[in-house]
Amino acid sequence: MITKETIAQEFQRIQQEICSGLEAEDGKAVFNLDAWKHEVAGGGHTRVITHGNVIEKGGVNFSAVEGLLPQFMKDKVSPDATHFFATGVSIVIHPYSPQVPIIHMNIRYFETNAGDSWFGGGIDLTPTYVNVDQASFFHQCMKDVCDQYDASYYPKFKAWADDYFFIRHRNETRGIGGIFFDYLKPDAGRTKEELFAFVCDVGRTFLKAYLPIVSANKTIPFTPEEKNWQLLRRGRYVEFNLVYDRGTRFGLETAGRIESILMSLPEHASWLYNYIPAKESSEEKTLSFLRKDVDWVTMNENKAIG
Amino acid sequence: MITKETIAQEFQRIQQEICSGLEAEDGKAVFNLDAWKHEVAGGGHTRVITHGNVIEKGGVNFSAVEGLLPQFMKDKVSPDATHFFATGVSIVIHPYSPQVPIIHMNIRYFETNAGDSWFGGGIDLTPTYVNVDQASFFHQCMKDVCDQYDASYYPKFKAWADDYFFIRHRNETRGIGGIFFDYLKPDAGRTKEELFAFVCDVGRTFLKAYLPIVSANKTIPFTPEEKNWQLLRRGRYVEFNLVYDRGTRFGLETAGRIESILMSLPEHASWLYNYIPAKESSEEKTLSFLRKDVDWVTMNENKAIG
Repeated sequence: MITKETIAQEFQRIQQEICSGLEAEDGKAVFNLDAWKHEVAGGGHTRVITHGNVIEKGGVNFSAVEGLLPQFMKDKVSPDATHFFATGVSIVIHPYSPQVPIIHMNIRYFETNAGDSWFGGGIDLTPTYVNVDQASFFHQCMKDVCDQYDASYYPKFKAWADDYFFIRHRNETRGIGGIFFDYLKPDAGRTKEELFAFVCDVGRTFLKAYLPIVSANKTIPFTPEEKNWQLLRRGRYVEFNLVYDRGTRFGLETAGRIESILMSLPEHASWLYNYIPAKESSEEKTLSFLRKDVDWVTMNENKAIG
Repeated sequence: MITKETIAQEFQRIQQEICSGLEAEDGKAVFNLDAWKHEVAGGGHTRVITHGNVIEKGGVNFSAVEGLLPQFMKDKVSPDATHFFATGVSIVIHPYSPQVPIIHMNIRYFETNAGDSWFGGGIDLTPTYVNVDQASFFHQCMKDVCDQYDASYYPKFKAWADDYFFIRHRNETRGIGGIFFDYLKPDAGRTKEELFAFVCDVGRTFLKAYLPIVSANKTIPFTPEEKNWQLLRRGRYVEFNLVYDRGTRFGLETAGRIESILMSLPEHASWLYNYIPAKESSEEKTLSFLRKDVDWVTMNENKAIG
């Protein structure tokens, strides 16, 4: 039987691979490392990159913590569970250029001392300007990794991402979505080993899905107006993370390591009162894409980018 | 008996007085006016000022709305209440200069069709750099308005503000506090008319407490480093408003007018990973003041500023 130590080790390996891949693409900045201890038991390795050629601020966080089961988790686990163990990798990358999308990835594993255990995760892309071909490519990458395991995964997890990465008070999605899943448990059809393999493959899809887009866009020039639009979109990102994101809310409520939880926030963001993009502008066009149920995979058959 | 129409009218008058006072102090920008309708009944006058001499972004919002009582309010009212009416004035001012504090004020009145009614409100100051004399002056203004009505108000409402304007996940207060109160109901000791007079006086203390500080500080030069510190403190302001502020959360959950609710957010804010001010710096000194139970009124006997 696969152990929590094995899972945590593999997650750390994925963290390392992703940091190396992002450093190579950035070409200037390197990730620093903050090792920290959880107040109960365990801890994490928070790796932050700032002021690179491409990345303004980004974090790739690994953690493995254990403790008393929080009250609000009790309805999700066996009645006799008292302690939990959780490990995961969380990533948010904020590039300088409005031509390069923000990306987020998370893979996680949770277990209790009463034998409950499940995996969760997700990847989603938040372009400042939606490029349909790239959005389609990104979703195809998500579909490819899902289809290796279960044909039902992509449609289900894509819809879940649409629902999850949704800024309800704005009635808009955070970006073009991706996949999101939670409570993936071993059952008759799927062993724990297979679920673990799937979640690791999701983690390893991150670079495959993101680097081609970064590489294609990072040298495209941009205007001050495009930069301002990016700052506004980042403001929406802040709204999502502080108001809705479950990982963030969980961290704030359980007194996690605040700097690791809020490393997801951009270095700069802005808010204007009642800003409405000009008719027919590329900003308005992007807004028109920020809704649920866009079938990105079939939207464009030409998947080649760059 | 005082009516809700009278209360709403007087609140609108206070909104007007405050806009005029802020415009005069700013000397350049004027408030625009967005009149809007609530989706159920009523509406508001959102007045926003941007890019003045002193104020980068500020809003003075009046609203008077009615509707079906939200589920989460039901434990606070009579069992037979089905509808509510709420009116209030809400202000947040974000100056350009880190020498000039952010200020927030709110006065509000709530009633149900079952005869429940109460007042609430508060004013608090968020300096980028704490100036002890000015903090003391500000709190003395709050104490003065409270003491006219009840000697128990200031100590009680000051402590309430310390608890309310607290960023729990950072273990720091938002600023130097002020006063906060809610559920002020008529009883044996206090008529509804007296409570209304108190709340209006709180509203009218806004300019008395804020303009002398603006006037004294608005021409003090500042460095780029001080500006950066302001952007970080504004980031904390965003964290408070999106994570904890009850008015904001109420608005987001009840689908209020989003632009009026989120006008409290600054035009620009920033987040750095794990930023720690230098030892003995004025930033570190300011952080040392951002805690509960500072007795600002007695901290300095020299109340003269400017």
